[in-house]
Amino acid sequence: MKQAPSFRVAKKELARFVYEVLRKAGADEPSARAVTRALVDTSAMGVDSHGVRLLPHYVKAVTGGRVCGSPNMGFERRAPAVGCLDADNGFGHLAGFRAIDHGIEIAEEIGVAAVSVVNSSHFGAAGCYVLAAAERGYAALAVSNSDAFVLPHDGTRPFHGTNPLAFATPVPAQKPYLLDMATSAIPWNRVQQYLTIGEDLPPEVAADGLGRSTTDPARVAALAPLGGAIFGYKGAGLAGMIEILSSALTGMLHGNALLPMGGPDFATPRHVGHFFLVLRPDAFVPQAVYEERILAYLANLREQPSSSPEKRVIAPGDREWSVEAERTSNGIPIDAAYWEIFAELAERSGVTPL
Amino acid sequence: MKQAPSFRVAKKELARFVYEVLRKAGADEPSARAVTRALVDTSAMGVDSHGVRLLPHYVKAVTGGRVCGSPNMGFERRAPAVGCLDADNGFGHLAGFRAIDHGIEIAEEIGVAAVSVVNSSHFGAAGCYVLAAAERGYAALAVSNSDAFVLPHDGTRPFHGTNPLAFATPVPAQKPYLLDMATSAIPWNRVQQYLTIGEDLPPEVAADGLGRSTTDPARVAALAPLGGAIFGYKGAGLAGMIEILSSALTGMLHGNALLPMGGPDFATPRHVGHFFLVLRPDAFVPQAVYEERILAYLANLREQPSSSPEKRVIAPGDREWSVEAERTSNGIPIDAAYWEIFAELAERSGVTPL
Repeated sequence: MKQAPSFRVAKKELARFVYEVLRKAGADEPSARAVTRALVDTSAMGVDSHGVRLLPHYVKAVTGGRVCGSPNMGFERRAPAVGCLDADNGFGHLAGFRAIDHGIEIAEEIGVAAVSVVNSSHFGAAGCYVLAAAERGYAALAVSNSDAFVLPHDGTRPFHGTNPLAFATPVPAQKPYLLDMATSAIPWNRVQQYLTIGEDLPPEVAADGLGRSTTDPARVAALAPLGGAIFGYKGAGLAGMIEILSSALTGMLHGNALLPMGGPDFATPRHVGHFFLVLRPDAFVPQAVYEERILAYLANLREQPSSSPEKRVIAPGDREWSVEAERTSNGIPIDAAYWEIFAELAERSGVTPL
Repeated sequence: MKQAPSFRVAKKELARFVYEVLRKAGADEPSARAVTRALVDTSAMGVDSHGVRLLPHYVKAVTGGRVCGSPNMGFERRAPAVGCLDADNGFGHLAGFRAIDHGIEIAEEIGVAAVSVVNSSHFGAAGCYVLAAAERGYAALAVSNSDAFVLPHDGTRPFHGTNPLAFATPVPAQKPYLLDMATSAIPWNRVQQYLTIGEDLPPEVAADGLGRSTTDPARVAALAPLGGAIFGYKGAGLAGMIEILSSALTGMLHGNALLPMGGPDFATPRHVGHFFLVLRPDAFVPQAVYEERILAYLANLREQPSSSPEKRVIAPGDREWSVEAERTSNGIPIDAAYWEIFAELAERSGVTPL
């Protein structure tokens, strides 16, 4: 099948556009800056599902009233190692970056910080926040629950969210190690890719509206937990751990009780919870030991023999960094459908189009 | 095929036997107590692969000199939220329980504790340690690397260990939530079960000596990372996160550089690293909020419709707690092969047999 035509936009110009649209939609300066950073960086790294294509969604959320465009976010240090950020129903992206800033401040002082976020909303790609920590020299973990879209193990009805887990850690003279994964067997955007190219899904990764396993991407109504029919207790257990960190430890609702991200209600705040952990490596071992060990591990990993000549054994993030280098040079591709959507958005917002 | 005959032994009698054998092999009182607690509790919960069947292995390790039977474990608080336990090449089980004790002390004071363990050895089931924390009211995470047995994503040679992740959290008036999983697509003991019952493995969970996917349990030389051929980057990424926590943050070697658990060298210490995190729930939210949220989540999970009448949607740990109740009443089954092995061990050790 033929590739849809796509346009390339320089990162800076794309950021200009996203920022201006968000400002016109009612986001204040810090909110618009945080959402723009998250979306454009995510698109630059090739994670298109969580990049600028979410812009129309966020515009709807902030104009509808679900998300507060000028939140008054408050931070409370509840114990020496624990902070809680109240996102005041603002953008999850601003909450995420702020939580990491607070986490770094605490970890600088006492080695480790756990920062919970309450009254938040969708924060895009979890990887953005741990990356922000790693770029400043800290290891970090970020998790968030989300509304029901993944079956429980042995279940038939969506219950957990795709509940992402992201982990990053700095690597001397290299881009950070960056893992960002959903705890579902397949990411939702991959299901849509199979649909677009007209191919069957791998077995046991998704289910139809009755909770029966399906390989037809057009019939998918839920995702399976990572591990499939037999070992799905692993993905479901990880999703559960993330529910507990994001909900039981924050006081927010668990995923199955959250209002759906997709609407139709775009007026009511969703009160999403997130959980972040920030670790200062040299609180554990001397910095030189940390650096020697992470380099030895990654070098050994990347030199492993691959299963075919077209493949290489890589570390989490390696693919994203090479896409980012290419897109920084050549621009970020926007497909024809989104080119159209962004043109309409520009007109509606009174913003100079891309 | 016919079930091998098995014998039932009361938990207390099994603990007596394991303890005495370990003492005769050279383990001091605290070491023998810790290993006994871990092995017998794990067997009682039905996780037979990591239970008392490891006793002969540990006897070999301590008599061979790999493990020090009377270690002098030192603890250093490196930052307010960070401690490091030097296990002095003693049993990983003693190191694990001690790390949790130190972690609880720190978390009591400042909300969260990260405790790394250096110069350790195999610690059995990671679930034991987080369970010890949950029983005292704390949420906990435990991870450890291990020697190479799992392929990297797109690789052909074992690189990561099965690198387990365990998470537990207290539940009011119920047994704790308890997740304990390897980051491989299938646990090694399940491969052995398929071999015993003469059935083919599910696809894409294991590989032969050349790193090619196989469904023949007799040909398995490596496990696939959780997620299989296409989505194995998830399991491999989790395994990598665990390597980084257990090795880069401890200064120990990564899994692929560790001496193999299975020998032949039983004289050289392996210098395994572990990483524990302990969280005090009421440092995050009032205890009543935590309890209401965890109960609501678990009740909602357990009432989900199941995919067949013989199955139920359960929480991690539920199966283990029901096995534990049954085995506490009826005794812990020891199969005929192990009955024989334990009889020989009793004779060799000069210990009263089971």
